[in-house]
Amino acid sequence: MPKVIICGAGLVGALNACFFARRGWDVEVYEFRDDIRQMEHVPGRSINLALSCRGKSALEAVGLKDYIVEQGVKMYARLVHNQDGKTTNRQPYGQPGEHIVSINRRHLNEVMITQAEEYDNVKFFFQHKVRRMDMKLGVVIVENFLTAEELFVNGDLILACDGAHSAIRRSLMAFPQFNFSQEYIKHGYIELNILPKDDKFALEPNVFHLWPRGDFTVIALANTDKTFTTTLFAPFELFEKRMGNDKDVVQFFSEYFPDALKHIGEPALLETFNRVKPQTLISVKCEPHAFAGKVLLMGDAAHAMVPFYGQGMNCGFEDCLVLSEILDQCKDDVALTLKTYSTQRCRDARTIIDLAMYNYQELKDLVNRKSYKLRKKFDLFLNKWMPNTWVPLYSMVTFTRTPYHEVVEIRKWQDQVLRRTFNVTLLAAAVGGAFSVAKHFKLF
Amino acid sequence: MPKVIICGAGLVGALNACFFARRGWDVEVYEFRDDIRQMEHVPGRSINLALSCRGKSALEAVGLKDYIVEQGVKMYARLVHNQDGKTTNRQPYGQPGEHIVSINRRHLNEVMITQAEEYDNVKFFFQHKVRRMDMKLGVVIVENFLTAEELFVNGDLILACDGAHSAIRRSLMAFPQFNFSQEYIKHGYIELNILPKDDKFALEPNVFHLWPRGDFTVIALANTDKTFTTTLFAPFELFEKRMGNDKDVVQFFSEYFPDALKHIGEPALLETFNRVKPQTLISVKCEPHAFAGKVLLMGDAAHAMVPFYGQGMNCGFEDCLVLSEILDQCKDDVALTLKTYSTQRCRDARTIIDLAMYNYQELKDLVNRKSYKLRKKFDLFLNKWMPNTWVPLYSMVTFTRTPYHEVVEIRKWQDQVLRRTFNVTLLAAAVGGAFSVAKHFKLF
Repeated sequence: MPKVIICGAGLVGALNACFFARRGWDVEVYEFRDDIRQMEHVPGRSINLALSCRGKSALEAVGLKDYIVEQGVKMYARLVHNQDGKTTNRQPYGQPGEHIVSINRRHLNEVMITQAEEYDNVKFFFQHKVRRMDMKLGVVIVENFLTAEELFVNGDLILACDGAHSAIRRSLMAFPQFNFSQEYIKHGYIELNILPKDDKFALEPNVFHLWPRGDFTVIALANTDKTFTTTLFAPFELFEKRMGNDKDVVQFFSEYFPDALKHIGEPALLETFNRVKPQTLISVKCEPHAFAGKVLLMGDAAHAMVPFYGQGMNCGFEDCLVLSEILDQCKDDVALTLKTYSTQRCRDARTIIDLAMYNYQELKDLVNRKSYKLRKKFDLFLNKWMPNTWVPLYSMVTFTRTPYHEVVEIRKWQDQVLRRTFNVTLLAAAVGGAFSVAKHFKLF
Repeated sequence: MPKVIICGAGLVGALNACFFARRGWDVEVYEFRDDIRQMEHVPGRSINLALSCRGKSALEAVGLKDYIVEQGVKMYARLVHNQDGKTTNRQPYGQPGEHIVSINRRHLNEVMITQAEEYDNVKFFFQHKVRRMDMKLGVVIVENFLTAEELFVNGDLILACDGAHSAIRRSLMAFPQFNFSQEYIKHGYIELNILPKDDKFALEPNVFHLWPRGDFTVIALANTDKTFTTTLFAPFELFEKRMGNDKDVVQFFSEYFPDALKHIGEPALLETFNRVKPQTLISVKCEPHAFAGKVLLMGDAAHAMVPFYGQGMNCGFEDCLVLSEILDQCKDDVALTLKTYSTQRCRDARTIIDLAMYNYQELKDLVNRKSYKLRKKFDLFLNKWMPNTWVPLYSMVTFTRTPYHEVVEIRKWQDQVLRRTFNVTLLAAAVGGAFSVAKHFKLF
């Protein structure tokens, strides 16, 4: 059987392990952390994530969808919190019933590792740090933290699922014609927590809570333990200038997020601000994703994106599904699969990275604009009457597997249709108006 | 005295060594090649370069300008070669007398190393490869090729002049908020040679020869030995499809560059095509250029650009001059200097990288468009009558030290003036026309 080396046992690495386990390949997964199932506290990335169609489809293919979805909290709409604490603006994500699911990153990761490990052909090597790729030798160089030994590992296929700062990708920087960019945005984030009140959710659980305040925003997603993971996104400059000490932090929250502050509580707020620093947000694009017919960048290693479209994990999970689908089509011909995958996926990744960056603007501000709300309502209205013809952008991204680049093409077509309709309507109104005037003056 | 570690003894590293030698600092330069003064053949980058004002100013500051300029060939204009071999289109670079200088890369590099070595406070370490920077320890890790030893070197200031694929920069990829992009263009290049004819230049020496053919181009620059370094730029795809074998190569040159082919000669052309592959062209942007108040990226390590504005070396040389100027202003306060330098230079580097990419289009095609030629003539005309008020874009970049970002702002202002003038002229013509018509029909 062919052998696959998976670098990283995070979300995308672990899901790939499940896919290749089922495919019957020999699977070796190298992960620098200890086994997260045995860790008390897992440092690093955000605590919960929004699972939508693309992620669900991938989980379904390895038999995990229903189990995972059951353990999450469904969200049917965005609920906008005004500065006075009122929530007058509720924006459904799609048609009644359409939803995304708030899930716990760690739990999801654990379930996938356990699932993969049930297969005899899968081995996890924890505390093994992937250091780099030697393209001349065609091997991955891994450091065993337990023995300080350096291992040279090799397989028929090498999947770099080692995250936004991928060591494999760094070794490929001088690969001919490798285009790459990494961009940090001006915003950082801090995660807070809203605890249950009288053993109940302190806020409505089945919505995505949003406090947009122009250049900074708070969001809150429910967890099954009735807490809410609550995240403040703000420019680093603002963290420095307006949240530099305890007094300022409280003052800032009192002014802009009085209702959220009430639920978070002053002591907990200050404890967090004194313990952690704002985290950075990075956007990574590269092309190609495949190298030398053998190495493939996947997930954040290929396309880290800002979190404002909720597609980072979903896109990474879809990577695994797309790879599996193309392997099927190509009858396990690795070189051909990688070529096809890279051509197709680079374009889609580029598109969703750009959409996420665009939504970075939208979440901050647009949601409160009349024109934006009107278009949203209009799109959902058309969608209701023409469910197959008119699908809003957000719905195509979130509730379908339409390739991301096609989503944008369809949106352009929609914009064109609307512009023309608007022009025709204006013309009709003008002509109608002229006739009325003419009639009024009895010109005919 | 403070100590500076210079990574790389290429053009920018060697010039920095001259600057810091004169400043009286202790200077250590680490270079992975052997001493090029003792090498028979130096592999790698292109053979000659166009020196203009920014480069000259930097050389002047270390007392090398006159010596270097004397050893180059002056170029006063672009001379466009048509497909029929005729040269009907001559575009002066500026006012009569204004010129750029074609110089030999290797000679220039050798002169600077020799100049720097005359100072007791300068040491060159050849065959010492800079491997990486350890930011925690604050040291540069260098491998001595002669002993296979790994050295940890340190200084008050570390200058990464280690080129477009900088190892120092690669170690900084995970530095917080480091924005970076590298982009290969679709074009590659192959260098050819036109030999002297009867011990004379085969073509007019004091112009930049240009054979623009839409998506591919040949250029030729004279050398003091009466040869011409002749470069074909073309899409990699075209190299594959149209120049895959001897017959096709000759056919291609006969069709598009008959006059150049005559001078190059078929045997020499084929010898080159069989020996070398087309080289890639990369554009690198990053921000910041300075790290931890101690490390500075300079030259191609900070801003590799496509060669179509002839500013790569000039910008790198100006880096050295700007650093020296800011060190003077800041009285050798390294941390303050680096902060000031990075803020100022990132913006300018970004601008010239973009301009070079824009000129990539221009050189390929625009030079043959009427509108382009007209604007060029018009700019030079205005410049002649208002030399201080109206300086064409190319002249500002090439013949002044106006910061690159200001150059673009000034150009935008010029465009605005022209647009308004054009509108006023149109209006005047329209009004004039109306009056004539009115007069004709004796309406007054």
